[in-house]
Amino acid sequence: MKKQLKMNSLKKNWFTEDCEMWPGGTFSVEVKEVLYSEQSDYQEITVFDTTKFGKVLVLDGIIQCTEKDEFAYQESIAFLPLCLHKNPEKVLIVGGGDGGVAREVAKHPQVKEILQVEIDEKVIEVSKKYLPFLAVGFESPKLKLHIGDGFEFMLNHKNEFDVIITDSSDPVGPAVSLFRDHYFQLMKSALKPNGIICSQAGTVWNDLDLVSNILNICKKQFPKAAYAYASVPTYPSGQIGFVIGSLDNDIVFDKPERVFTEEDEKEMKLRYYSSEIHKAAFVLPTFVRQHLAKNTAE
Amino acid sequence: MKKQLKMNSLKKNWFTEDCEMWPGGTFSVEVKEVLYSEQSDYQEITVFDTTKFGKVLVLDGIIQCTEKDEFAYQESIAFLPLCLHKNPEKVLIVGGGDGGVAREVAKHPQVKEILQVEIDEKVIEVSKKYLPFLAVGFESPKLKLHIGDGFEFMLNHKNEFDVIITDSSDPVGPAVSLFRDHYFQLMKSALKPNGIICSQAGTVWNDLDLVSNILNICKKQFPKAAYAYASVPTYPSGQIGFVIGSLDNDIVFDKPERVFTEEDEKEMKLRYYSSEIHKAAFVLPTFVRQHLAKNTAE
Repeated sequence: MKKQLKMNSLKKNWFTEDCEMWPGGTFSVEVKEVLYSEQSDYQEITVFDTTKFGKVLVLDGIIQCTEKDEFAYQESIAFLPLCLHKNPEKVLIVGGGDGGVAREVAKHPQVKEILQVEIDEKVIEVSKKYLPFLAVGFESPKLKLHIGDGFEFMLNHKNEFDVIITDSSDPVGPAVSLFRDHYFQLMKSALKPNGIICSQAGTVWNDLDLVSNILNICKKQFPKAAYAYASVPTYPSGQIGFVIGSLDNDIVFDKPERVFTEEDEKEMKLRYYSSEIHKAAFVLPTFVRQHLAKNTAE
Repeated sequence: MKKQLKMNSLKKNWFTEDCEMWPGGTFSVEVKEVLYSEQSDYQEITVFDTTKFGKVLVLDGIIQCTEKDEFAYQESIAFLPLCLHKNPEKVLIVGGGDGGVAREVAKHPQVKEILQVEIDEKVIEVSKKYLPFLAVGFESPKLKLHIGDGFEFMLNHKNEFDVIITDSSDPVGPAVSLFRDHYFQLMKSALKPNGIICSQAGTVWNDLDLVSNILNICKKQFPKAAYAYASVPTYPSGQIGFVIGSLDNDIVFDKPERVFTEEDEKEMKLRYYSSEIHKAAFVLPTFVRQHLAKNTAE
């Protein structure tokens, strides 16, 4: 008996990602309501309410975060570099206009001062209105928020930060320059001695060459660099990765300087990150480890 | 400017998963050609060729494996239990009709004899014809393949196996009984002293209660039990999990008895599993660790 295959079967009110970066496979969410959809000076900003993933922020047709799993991303990009630094007092966040990364960075007990530079004021505005669980990050008294370009900002801030976190969209569209040599040079010059950077860096299942390219760019500027990843179901392939670069020659990436106890986890309301997860984040599948060993500098 | 949102935009020739187990979000693949699609006595069996994921096996509308990422699943479900056993000479595989698990189990240097029981002969036939990279597992001289029911088979095989691996589809449809008490009792009785079982067990992002239920069922029969996971992009949420139960009270789940060197990895053509990945597979995100601590037996 030949059965009729359910092809092209997506029902009404589903939003499907469509991006040249991951052709041939795509994720879709069932939308309850479109809360906002406008073109800003930089990108198309959309906020959905969905049936199973809560509120969802979409930029230029690509899911940036969902209420269900955003914490895995925000906690990882914040605490991986922060906990590797001996005393991360002053932190710069580039991008992160939804507020989620600031929310996590502000929780770290050693962080005293956070500067954030976001180019698109509209994202902040939309987040404050529709995504309060993220925008709560803007309420921290530790935070100073600047609207502007991360490049320009760093040209005027040298030797100033312990940690720089780049929470960007993918290397297509407005964020493409954040994945290039010049940007990593600027970050290096904006760091204090022994400073650490952490940038979103694609996933190994989608584009291993992209990952090795970004890691090589990072290695050109930083004596120590590594790739780590977190499980985030609504990103393509269910993961997101980070490059971490350090000016501290003695750094051991899978050994956090700051170890969180279970009490710390509760107090900080951590839902994904732990000191054990930190170690595991650097353990790469064999095909990735072999590829990076072959295709990135020593 | 109000932009027109790209809703309901899935193009022609895309196959979309549709399953009651994960409503509200779904993965789609672009199909080049439908190679096979028939109803067997047990399920609808489909094989696609796709633009980016190679050959894909679909049972009852759910992706079972794709050529691109199947190795992460097969290596994990095979080597997590095998490497935890001091001497895994005799192994039973229940299900696994595509041959992928047998392919990996046969590689383990200590394994001498593999029995496999698959209920649906058609899956084996289809795999041999369309999925040779998986069906190559049936060619091992270590393997004896039986067509039949795993329950009946284990009733007639007591105290016989070092390791039992259950490579089933999800707990809807024909595989539902493989997630119940009786099945875990039967596995226990089919094991030799210090035996170990490993079963597919859902993912924490989709249904944490399902995971804690299966773990509790496992804990009822086995003095030691744990949950581990692997990154498999084409499964819902990009992960798949396993419950592992052991009759050996001294087992330490994140310390493999058999440690593979880089030479072993190359010789065995491992692409995902390593002894470091083994340890990391048991490190659970904070929300999962907290949930399982609260909702499963000591």
